[in-house]
Amino acid sequence: MSEVDVPESHPRYESLLTRHRIETGVEKGITSQQGLIAQGRGEAFDYLLGERTIESADRAERVGAAHLLLADHPVLSVNGNVAALVPGEVVELAAVTGADLEVNLFNRTEQRIEAIADHLREHGANEVKGLTADARIPGLDHERAKVDADGIYNADTVVVPLEDGDRAEALGEMGKTEIVIDLNPLSRSAQVAAVPIIDNVLRAVPNMTAHARSLQDTPADALQQIVDDFDPAQALGAAEEAIRSGELE
Amino acid sequence: MSEVDVPESHPRYESLLTRHRIETGVEKGITSQQGLIAQGRGEAFDYLLGERTIESADRAERVGAAHLLLADHPVLSVNGNVAALVPGEVVELAAVTGADLEVNLFNRTEQRIEAIADHLREHGANEVKGLTADARIPGLDHERAKVDADGIYNADTVVVPLEDGDRAEALGEMGKTEIVIDLNPLSRSAQVAAVPIIDNVLRAVPNMTAHARSLQDTPADALQQIVDDFDPAQALGAAEEAIRSGELE
Repeated sequence: MSEVDVPESHPRYESLLTRHRIETGVEKGITSQQGLIAQGRGEAFDYLLGERTIESADRAERVGAAHLLLADHPVLSVNGNVAALVPGEVVELAAVTGADLEVNLFNRTEQRIEAIADHLREHGANEVKGLTADARIPGLDHERAKVDADGIYNADTVVVPLEDGDRAEALGEMGKTEIVIDLNPLSRSAQVAAVPIIDNVLRAVPNMTAHARSLQDTPADALQQIVDDFDPAQALGAAEEAIRSGELE
Repeated sequence: MSEVDVPESHPRYESLLTRHRIETGVEKGITSQQGLIAQGRGEAFDYLLGERTIESADRAERVGAAHLLLADHPVLSVNGNVAALVPGEVVELAAVTGADLEVNLFNRTEQRIEAIADHLREHGANEVKGLTADARIPGLDHERAKVDADGIYNADTVVVPLEDGDRAEALGEMGKTEIVIDLNPLSRSAQVAAVPIIDNVLRAVPNMTAHARSLQDTPADALQQIVDDFDPAQALGAAEEAIRSGELE
């Protein structure tokens, strides 16, 4: 039995787990009102995708894992929904790939950042960045621009799950390799990403970890080949095609 | 200037108005956590539809208006999201068609019902049903089954915007003519409706009122012809087609 008292084989396991984690997020002050609405938007796109990791998303997750292993300074950006939905899973991905975890919120309050950092620590995180906020992303308004100098600001590769478009664009303009997880293939975040992953974070993050584990002893030139062979436009096209032509029932 | 301090011609007027009304709904205890997630799901489908009333939806809204004018006892069912999003608009539709307003919630608490009834009264409602709860819809569990005997229970025609599938199905089995407003053409509610309206409530409800006004002096046999000519499967098919083939940007 799991966190939600149903076996993982239960047909509605993922949906029940999601609901349970979102409720916990609300109770702990992690999930915002806007976060709940964003969750619903994601659910609709996931429904259209068939609530599965499509083949092109699995490939993108492997490429994302290769990027993280190649990076000098990878950072996983964590917002309220990511913290609520996949707290243990992002901690594990960070551990396997040597990435930092940095809390970064659309509606930034010190209280929410602290709540999220606590939640990640309860799920095994040692260090959580995002509280220093001693650097700024150029081109964004004050609150949205805040990052840690030794975190996202100096990262070469960032995973930004469920990120808003402006911020994804500004990070791209800083020359960072961006891995975006988003269920809408036509969102601006997905469009500007080096690696757009069109999948539910609940499936995408553990799958990236599994890929990172299996790629861990792969030489750098072979990892580089995986990265170079990837075509983001093709991944976005395949996801759009899946949404448009999939069986909806 | 309007409720949200931008002119109605503003390109993001509808989105800003929606956000403002949802925030008010949360402040007043009208909008639930599940309601916020449902709002997000609707937004995603509306985005795919192009955030417009497609032609087949406009036709369905006209048919819905004709049904309400023909009915002996029409009732508009109001849940938390409907009350938050279109409080004045449902009061107006009820007034123009002689329908009752009845509050009916998925997560029923006396406090939320009272808050919603108050909100509707502030928007001009005289009588709001749903507080007596002296009858039960067969086939539903206790809390979900509660309705007013002189309201939904005895209605011949019901408008159920944003309704859950079980309830929509149970109302259909009672022999009522159901007019469902839902942005997902493949939701069970839309599938079981006599008149599925695949549109945003913010556009659908005022448009039904406009149609009701223009049909007000139409003889009953002509209204009946409008109703008889309608094919719900065709309306659902057109909406699905719009979602699948529309320009997403």
